[in-house]
Amino acid sequence: MSEFTAIDITAINTIRTLAMDAVQKANSGHPGAPMGLAPVAYVLWNKFLNYDPADPMWPNRDRFVLSNGHASMLLYSLIHLAQVKNVDHHGKVLDEPSLPIDQLKQFRQLNSKTPGHPEHEYTAGVETTTGPLGQGVGNAVGMAIAQKWRAAHYGRPGFEALFDHRVYAICGDGCMMEGVASEAASLAGHLKLNNLTLIYDDNGITIDGHTNLAFSEDVPARFAAYGWNVLRVTDGNDVDGMAKAIEASKHADRPTFIALKTVIGYGSPHKADTHAAHGEPLGADEIKLTKKAYGWPEDSSFLVPDGVYDRFKQGIGARGAAAHAAWHKLMSDYKAKFPKEAAELDAVEQRGLPAGWDKDIPVFPADAKGLATRDSSGTVLNAIAKNVPWIVGGSADLNPSTKTFMKFPEAGVFSAKTPGGRNVHFGVREHGMGAIMNGMALSGLRSYGSGFLIFSDYGRPPIRLAAIMNLPVLYVFTHDSIGVGEDGPTHQPIEQLMSLRAIPHLIVIRPGDANEVAEAYKYALQEKHHPVVFAMTRQPLPTLDRTKYAPASGLAKGGYALNDVPHPDLLLIATGSEVALALEAGEKLAAEGIKARVVSLPSWELFEKQDPAYRDSVIPPTVTARVCVEMGGAFGWERYAGRTGAVIGMRSFGASAPLKDLLKHFGFTVEAVVKAAKEQVGKK
Amino acid sequence: MSEFTAIDITAINTIRTLAMDAVQKANSGHPGAPMGLAPVAYVLWNKFLNYDPADPMWPNRDRFVLSNGHASMLLYSLIHLAQVKNVDHHGKVLDEPSLPIDQLKQFRQLNSKTPGHPEHEYTAGVETTTGPLGQGVGNAVGMAIAQKWRAAHYGRPGFEALFDHRVYAICGDGCMMEGVASEAASLAGHLKLNNLTLIYDDNGITIDGHTNLAFSEDVPARFAAYGWNVLRVTDGNDVDGMAKAIEASKHADRPTFIALKTVIGYGSPHKADTHAAHGEPLGADEIKLTKKAYGWPEDSSFLVPDGVYDRFKQGIGARGAAAHAAWHKLMSDYKAKFPKEAAELDAVEQRGLPAGWDKDIPVFPADAKGLATRDSSGTVLNAIAKNVPWIVGGSADLNPSTKTFMKFPEAGVFSAKTPGGRNVHFGVREHGMGAIMNGMALSGLRSYGSGFLIFSDYGRPPIRLAAIMNLPVLYVFTHDSIGVGEDGPTHQPIEQLMSLRAIPHLIVIRPGDANEVAEAYKYALQEKHHPVVFAMTRQPLPTLDRTKYAPASGLAKGGYALNDVPHPDLLLIATGSEVALALEAGEKLAAEGIKARVVSLPSWELFEKQDPAYRDSVIPPTVTARVCVEMGGAFGWERYAGRTGAVIGMRSFGASAPLKDLLKHFGFTVEAVVKAAKEQVGKK
Repeated sequence: MSEFTAIDITAINTIRTLAMDAVQKANSGHPGAPMGLAPVAYVLWNKFLNYDPADPMWPNRDRFVLSNGHASMLLYSLIHLAQVKNVDHHGKVLDEPSLPIDQLKQFRQLNSKTPGHPEHEYTAGVETTTGPLGQGVGNAVGMAIAQKWRAAHYGRPGFEALFDHRVYAICGDGCMMEGVASEAASLAGHLKLNNLTLIYDDNGITIDGHTNLAFSEDVPARFAAYGWNVLRVTDGNDVDGMAKAIEASKHADRPTFIALKTVIGYGSPHKADTHAAHGEPLGADEIKLTKKAYGWPEDSSFLVPDGVYDRFKQGIGARGAAAHAAWHKLMSDYKAKFPKEAAELDAVEQRGLPAGWDKDIPVFPADAKGLATRDSSGTVLNAIAKNVPWIVGGSADLNPSTKTFMKFPEAGVFSAKTPGGRNVHFGVREHGMGAIMNGMALSGLRSYGSGFLIFSDYGRPPIRLAAIMNLPVLYVFTHDSIGVGEDGPTHQPIEQLMSLRAIPHLIVIRPGDANEVAEAYKYALQEKHHPVVFAMTRQPLPTLDRTKYAPASGLAKGGYALNDVPHPDLLLIATGSEVALALEAGEKLAAEGIKARVVSLPSWELFEKQDPAYRDSVIPPTVTARVCVEMGGAFGWERYAGRTGAVIGMRSFGASAPLKDLLKHFGFTVEAVVKAAKEQVGKK
Repeated sequence: MSEFTAIDITAINTIRTLAMDAVQKANSGHPGAPMGLAPVAYVLWNKFLNYDPADPMWPNRDRFVLSNGHASMLLYSLIHLAQVKNVDHHGKVLDEPSLPIDQLKQFRQLNSKTPGHPEHEYTAGVETTTGPLGQGVGNAVGMAIAQKWRAAHYGRPGFEALFDHRVYAICGDGCMMEGVASEAASLAGHLKLNNLTLIYDDNGITIDGHTNLAFSEDVPARFAAYGWNVLRVTDGNDVDGMAKAIEASKHADRPTFIALKTVIGYGSPHKADTHAAHGEPLGADEIKLTKKAYGWPEDSSFLVPDGVYDRFKQGIGARGAAAHAAWHKLMSDYKAKFPKEAAELDAVEQRGLPAGWDKDIPVFPADAKGLATRDSSGTVLNAIAKNVPWIVGGSADLNPSTKTFMKFPEAGVFSAKTPGGRNVHFGVREHGMGAIMNGMALSGLRSYGSGFLIFSDYGRPPIRLAAIMNLPVLYVFTHDSIGVGEDGPTHQPIEQLMSLRAIPHLIVIRPGDANEVAEAYKYALQEKHHPVVFAMTRQPLPTLDRTKYAPASGLAKGGYALNDVPHPDLLLIATGSEVALALEAGEKLAAEGIKARVVSLPSWELFEKQDPAYRDSVIPPTVTARVCVEMGGAFGWERYAGRTGAVIGMRSFGASAPLKDLLKHFGFTVEAVVKAAKEQVGKK
């Protein structure tokens, strides 16, 4: 006998009609997917999700990810009906609903909490920002990794229940076609993340029409090939069948994929099972007919029938409250027994850092031969990570090159057998890596990822989403210029630096020597709300003599004058590997009586955050003789070169050759900088 | 009994030793994969490939794609040993080898024809530029689509053999992990591209170490799920087994995936089967030991033993010459019988256009209400495409939104059953789409793809590769600003325009009205060597009255003054949807006695190609009062605003709301432009 009764069906139809009504009122949105998915989402939330609506910040809550974010009204309806509480910007839970019914009526309006796609940073109860397809699958994998890690690292005998949450995600056909989801799913199977349940909304419809226009693969078989536990539910209204499948997923030894056949726009007499239900309002008449089909008052609008709120209270509400209370009780015992660990867990939730996190960061001695910033980066990362246990990350199969492996013995490798390990082998999956990093960060880990800067292109969407979500993820990109050398143009970044700088809210840092690297890490670790991208060299750079030049701590301001030239004839502005080049040119010029101020400008974003007085003190507007040097695209440097300044940068793709030949070929030489400088001074 | 004899093994070991020697001499590169793959590559080239080394431009040649491009020495060795001829920049075959042995000795050196990764544009015999992993799989799928289309469109009874080439590709573990290959493979299975054979170098080693660190999925089972014919060869030296598998692939009704177990660095006593063989020279001592293991003279270098060149001549050389000669004979009959089609095929090879290709491009009448540029784009695309049969393309599941469907009856849909169709349903696979478009273009088609501008991020790597390869692919990106409206920040491009402008060799065009759209298409179709990206609006724009304003043909110069203001007080510079806004502001200013020149700047790249005199005539350096308006990121506009000009652009992510609210919220109003203009004039 089914455990579901008439009120459950009413609750399901409430979700459907709220979605229809909100989209209709906004005259914009996607009603069809919420209508098809309402049963499974209801079953999941009200029968399974360990989630306390009274505290959406509870660390051990089950996570729910709606990867097909265009079905946002499904999630908003659930948040409303479950009466999830609101949270302020500091993460404090407020005694008010996250989404009162008025917010549903403000769907897709300016400043509402119900934007077109679910946005984590705006709406309590939304675990991650989705919309760009496939990303949510990666986020869910990241959250599952974070749970495994947290349980392994902080779990103690008798306290397993503190860290035993699961991750549930729903995705659509679009997610299944996107490579990012393929990458993440392959890794999830490899890691045997049995705390993850992915429900595939197999409705057979996309924007273009039926999926058979472009998509006829056997998706469940593909997930089986990834090593997932694959289950099928053939009727999107079979609430018992889906409950059984979800229950089974909790006991699997692998991640579970539930292929659920649904009907898009279910109940709509004329639009069900067509792409007309996908991305536009059903229309007033069709809504009436659909409500009639549900046995709903045809002229009702935003109706929540009696008993529906109560049903959610009895379900997710009561279950979540009890679980939460039991957790609190157990947590107080844990705190008493393991005060250090408990304090760390608090810090994790606050994006904080343990005392002394920076105590082992080295100061690098001046050294003309120097070392590559990828190498100093590896040293600094290790020095910090050993003091911050929840730094967890890795590379897209480039550890030997990016030097981002945590080498201290207790770091270990994250694997199915060693889920407390901190080095993640993401594989050659830059896009999946980024989406997974976001999920890890959403679950409190300080996640980092690395690769060659050129391959930031493979994973731009999750970098952007981290910026939208204010997530402090860290990217350590190395091989940051034609300094790559022999690998040639396909591997030499040109436009990548500038393209990353163009992303709002993202902080890009290209340190000029080992001590700037140390400062870059200091900044990045203390950053709570912005993703940070490092650009590190493959080739060695001199470590500057800081008794001669300004201290590297200037990095925190984004740009600073290295040499003391109060009234310069010209400015030499450089980043990263070109700082030493500019300094050398500056010395040559000085010998000829030309006073050049050399500015290290490792981060445009941090520099632009300084007050104008500081910026003008470093780059005086009156000094228009300027040479900017960066071994990336010249495009964009007009900002600092001004209309008349010179830019020594790349204006084409690179070439395959030893670096010394490339430097000469593309003009990154002291002679070229000196020549440009003289021309600038001559112009004045 | 094997058809392979001792000389074949010698030839295989020649490939291996050339790769070892070249990497050693360069002191940089990847010896291991060529050593493992030499047998299958040899079998494929010398026993199967229908390829005439005397004419690498022969249209019906079988295509070979090395998706794991870091194994470039494998390909260079084959090109050398098969004595493929050189080709000049105009595609003319020269009577000299593409890669004499000296070029192998110049591996990875400046200006050599043997760069670190294979580059189509430098080296005759290299069908596509590879290196960024997974791309080659997509290219191969595109080439397979192009062959199917060509055969269906130009094939005639009795002339099938003119268009019957196959596509062979080799890929590695990295390619198999990248989502782009997953996307392309899924579509290839859907389209039943039985002209495609993909050989998977399953060597179990990546840069980080054994693939079991991150990759334990059942790759063959995954390809079976995509609908591929899956074959296995368990010994990378089993030349008979691989010949059998390749032969079988020629008779399949689906694309064939051959999983081939190889040993990376085969023969190296200490480095075989380890990641030490992957990305660095073996070392002089290890090379000696390896050569000894092959029965090779230990102190030889770049040795091609007697009989090896001849073996290639007897194999690929003789087979290719015969096939090519037969093809020419048949082609002359075809020319006689089907002169129009034959002329078109010539044009396809030349990236030409048929006479009258532009005759149906409409002139749009002035219209204050106007239409979205995505709509005028759809009209113009259709007007051109019906006259250019080899325009083949589609969208990533966004046809109803991007308006890029070719609607004329003879266009049809490209599918397994209708391979002469021209509308390709790429599915929700932006990255795969781009890689496939490149493959189609490499096989002569004028390929286009479309999607929302925001999702250009999902497919940046193939856009960049198109620019590197000088391929004239066309991207029609729509929904090009916060004009997207209710879908909100995840769907509203901000930094995308500028990030695309930052890519070298790429032409970005954001037309300001319907007639600029027509001009944009005219330009793009005639462009033979650069990829072109269009940015089109979702929302309607007025069609400008060209009796009042300068003709839209100014677009070809990238930027032009719309109104006739010889001595302006200030410049209003705008693109796309903001052109009309600037014009309206200009009129308001004129009414107040302020003379504003309004400049439409649809393409920065085309504008920068003009001579300085023209540029200065449009944007006079002396007029420093400037307001630049673009509904994208402000970042980068310093180029035209100058140090003191104003930029009205986005400085954050967007928001979900109806467009009219967003315009006000983010300051894209006539009032805001007028205000900024007055401030600028006041400053002067």
